[in-house]
Amino acid sequence: MPATTTERQLTIGGLIFPGLDQCDFTGPFTALSRVPNSRFLTLWKELEPVTDLNGLRLLPDTTLREAPQLDVLLVPGGKGQEGLMTDEVVISFIRQQAAGASYVFSVCTGALLCGAAGLLQGRRATTHWAALDVLPYYGATVSTERVVVDGSLITTGGITAGIDGALQVAALLRGDTVAQEIQLDIAYDPHPIFSAGSPATAPAEVLRAVQARTQALTDRRLAAGRIYQAGPAV
Amino acid sequence: MPATTTERQLTIGGLIFPGLDQCDFTGPFTALSRVPNSRFLTLWKELEPVTDLNGLRLLPDTTLREAPQLDVLLVPGGKGQEGLMTDEVVISFIRQQAAGASYVFSVCTGALLCGAAGLLQGRRATTHWAALDVLPYYGATVSTERVVVDGSLITTGGITAGIDGALQVAALLRGDTVAQEIQLDIAYDPHPIFSAGSPATAPAEVLRAVQARTQALTDRRLAAGRIYQAGPAV
Repeated sequence: MPATTTERQLTIGGLIFPGLDQCDFTGPFTALSRVPNSRFLTLWKELEPVTDLNGLRLLPDTTLREAPQLDVLLVPGGKGQEGLMTDEVVISFIRQQAAGASYVFSVCTGALLCGAAGLLQGRRATTHWAALDVLPYYGATVSTERVVVDGSLITTGGITAGIDGALQVAALLRGDTVAQEIQLDIAYDPHPIFSAGSPATAPAEVLRAVQARTQALTDRRLAAGRIYQAGPAV
Repeated sequence: MPATTTERQLTIGGLIFPGLDQCDFTGPFTALSRVPNSRFLTLWKELEPVTDLNGLRLLPDTTLREAPQLDVLLVPGGKGQEGLMTDEVVISFIRQQAAGASYVFSVCTGALLCGAAGLLQGRRATTHWAALDVLPYYGATVSTERVVVDGSLITTGGITAGIDGALQVAALLRGDTVAQEIQLDIAYDPHPIFSAGSPATAPAEVLRAVQARTQALTDRRLAAGRIYQAGPAV
């Protein structure tokens, strides 16, 4: 049982990068920035604005080089993940922070960045439903749960799953009551107007349309996984 | 039934402001930035970064003065809403855009800004559960539904309710199938680990703790509502 004391200030850091899906980051920020006696640092290589895959611009607080050791490292995904899989600065940052952090928390295809850092070897993990087949190349056992906790590694499904994951992380950090207070504050009582949020529940034609649009990216992610498995570049 | 053609490009604009809750904005951005043949503009008085109530910094794309007529105006809330209730630039912007927009879409206490602009008179509306009692001062009939559609006005509950609302807006703009494709893409199949997201489901001590922390702000919002009702300043 993790300590629920609020005595020690926690430092939570979230990686951002060009082409991230901002929701992978902002969903968890909503919950984790409310953890009592903590600070949240938004991190990237430089301090210039970072543009998400649909154009929203976020500002980092601190560079990767200047970041302190984090208690929690949030690793979002999104199309821009692809370009970072062999980026030694980013992958080393994830690996080094993971060595000292209490938790590494990936959302969506942020799991693949954790994979490139070697963090998925022998772990149960998940990612966006369209990229699940990529995980085994990084040594993970695939789970289709929305939030997967394997020791210090928390991985979640796609994009909006980061909110579910962040409440789990809040509970691990400060206990269930604190996480419930955050949930009530952010009114997280979801009522989707459709039941199309997963491949299992979406109408067949909806699934086909979304798969068709993401197939090329999925194929490239699979190819990168095969290259990694054949001999990691980092 | 709204048109589902994708022929005309839609312009969706989201207001941001100091002290907003970024999730009120970024949750809807996640869904609405994916509406086919549309563009999304992030709007504020100036082009400098805007800091959310927990420290995340977002960059506007366009000033209020230079914004084109929008098809959809997103109005988020958060503590910073309080300081804008008599801000003539902001309230006039909301009122003028509303006159030409297909939809005005408020999240959380963004509804109170819509109230200050006169948009709630005679309408069914909702807001964050802690601020529901404020709505009648602006002429609204209170609803406790998570997403309330009253003609061209869509209002939602607190913070994370914006995601549910945005899928509703996407369906109104482009039809149910498009909204379902967005839902699947963003993997919106929520599974909260606790059932504490509304006053009706949260444990009593959790509700008491969160209410205690927000009571002073709620009292000030009620006071502002009484002043508005006594004689609108705008």
